Amino acid sequence: MEIPEKPRLGIVGGGSWATAIAKILTETNDHINWFMRNIDTIKAFRALSHNPRYLCGVEFDLSKITFTDDINKLIGMCDVIIFAIPSAFLKNVTANITVSLQEKIVVSAIKGLIPNDNLIIGEFFNHYFKVPLEQIVVISGPCHAEEIALERLSYLTFASNDLKVARRVAQTFDCHYVKTSILDDIYGTEYAAVLKNVIAIAAGICHGLRYGDNFQAVLISNAIQEIERFVAAVHPIHRDIKSSAYLGDLLVTAYSQFSRNRTFGTMIGKGYSVKSAQMEMLMIAEGYFAVKGIKEINEHYNVHMPITNAVYNILYERISPTMEIRLLTEELR
Amino acid sequence: MEIPEKPRLGIVGGGSWATAIAKILTETNDHINWFMRNIDTIKAFRALSHNPRYLCGVEFDLSKITFTDDINKLIGMCDVIIFAIPSAFLKNVTANITVSLQEKIVVSAIKGLIPNDNLIIGEFFNHYFKVPLEQIVVISGPCHAEEIALERLSYLTFASNDLKVARRVAQTFDCHYVKTSILDDIYGTEYAAVLKNVIAIAAGICHGLRYGDNFQAVLISNAIQEIERFVAAVHPIHRDIKSSAYLGDLLVTAYSQFSRNRTFGTMIGKGYSVKSAQMEMLMIAEGYFAVKGIKEINEHYNVHMPITNAVYNILYERISPTMEIRLLTEELR
Repeated sequence: MEIPEKPRLGIVGGGSWATAIAKILTETNDHINWFMRNIDTIKAFRALSHNPRYLCGVEFDLSKITFTDDINKLIGMCDVIIFAIPSAFLKNVTANITVSLQEKIVVSAIKGLIPNDNLIIGEFFNHYFKVPLEQIVVISGPCHAEEIALERLSYLTFASNDLKVARRVAQTFDCHYVKTSILDDIYGTEYAAVLKNVIAIAAGICHGLRYGDNFQAVLISNAIQEIERFVAAVHPIHRDIKSSAYLGDLLVTAYSQFSRNRTFGTMIGKGYSVKSAQMEMLMIAEGYFAVKGIKEINEHYNVHMPITNAVYNILYERISPTMEIRLLTEELR
Repeated sequence: MEIPEKPRLGIVGGGSWATAIAKILTETNDHINWFMRNIDTIKAFRALSHNPRYLCGVEFDLSKITFTDDINKLIGMCDVIIFAIPSAFLKNVTANITVSLQEKIVVSAIKGLIPNDNLIIGEFFNHYFKVPLEQIVVISGPCHAEEIALERLSYLTFASNDLKVARRVAQTFDCHYVKTSILDDIYGTEYAAVLKNVIAIAAGICHGLRYGDNFQAVLISNAIQEIERFVAAVHPIHRDIKSSAYLGDLLVTAYSQFSRNRTFGTMIGKGYSVKSAQMEMLMIAEGYFAVKGIKEINEHYNVHMPITNAVYNILYERISPTMEIRLLTEELR
């Protein structure tokens, strides 16, 4: 597909990752369009010149941004539409779409599965909106939004079946604190991104149970092998799982004290029930849904996934974390 | 080589890692022999029932330990001798050996190269003491001594050209907080252990220069690929570099706030000179010697090693860390 020299860019979402992407894109592009569901958030943003709730320290030049709370209007204004909302909300948000996405480049900055459907984001847009897979781009790589706000150097990988499309989208992100590269692996990057949240929950559970750094290093070494086995079964192409898009993304999440998934796991490990951990956090960690989806998908592939299974058993089968992780320690090496 | 059912075990060294190994071995073995150079340390140990300087919280049953400050006596009393001293001191300590090591199992718990010779520990004992390579065992894996003291679950890998020998030594370490596995790769485990200290210095330098977690994840992902390339060139056998013995060991060191190599690097990144960082730390980080040795060895192999080269240039060629790391960022992806 041909993309214009200066594609018209749109962002869907009002959270911290959407805000970080808006910051990156306004560095070198003249203009962006930005959909948020809540008109009051848009009004507050316009009044303050920053997102009222996320990355509040990041000032925006409002002359570069066209806001809208009408997703169809956004789509009409754009060639490239970047979705950056939790996967659990995607069906809801896209339910209002009445215009065609078939001529658009759809970019997933979402790391999660569509609940119940168990589709990765690319498959979702392909299946429900008939977007050709060659027009899907997945953004991956280790990237805390908070570090983008601080302009700390970060590396993003853009995956697409059409590398020309991946490169064209990547170019719109290149700036003095973001380096980009491209890959041909939308399935691998999406599944690895989903699984890393499951692993982060596992890391948190073990931390909560007072396993130490020695064990965490063994857990993560085993985890990247588990991720490699799974993506090789689901989408067997040549890839180096040690690349930043896969291993780096896992490391930044699993070793982060700020990861919501890790925090959720830590509470479970310390003895909170799933419900009370979720209430305490006022939110649901993405990995909570992801582990169920992966478990269901893996019924078809039968990949050996001891870490994923342990997290599933603890969260959904109410097996005691102490016992389940003790069994897991026998599987690792 | 035949090893007795209950081999007589000896430890060489009085530091924290030697002390952790002594703790492990006295869990399930009836008796160990233990060489320390300093007779006063031995006296203090006997009086206190713990090491006076390292892991002081670990109480020992003295009836299980025979101490000696005579290395030849130690060797005579043992079938298996475990060396756990800094690589920079090994030549000095072994200079006093007058008895034969040729019938012994020599175990390296040392992670470093012999300075100037640029030999790994196994090669050193093979070359200078004619110990057959089949009688060399290398202990690897992510393992902070401090966590052994706390009996936090840890995994150790025992590498030897003779897997029966590796297994026999591994069995003496098995206990309720140590799980063991074996490998046939003494070169890979030793070089990976040496290189991880270089990488830890790099991670520290970047931290000192205020690069963030996103970048660290990219650095470590590139680092494990660099380690894989190097060990594949030096000793091309089939191995999975994502195993705990390699990747796990790297992770526990590079992500540790307590790693001396990382701390040294952080000071360099913050602007200390090499000399003043070493004076401030009252010691020299192993990676400081390692990077020189690896750089020299790699003149023969010509492996692409941008991270190692950057650390070398900063430490030995006095290139500004800011500039050198900025150049490095262009090489990573």
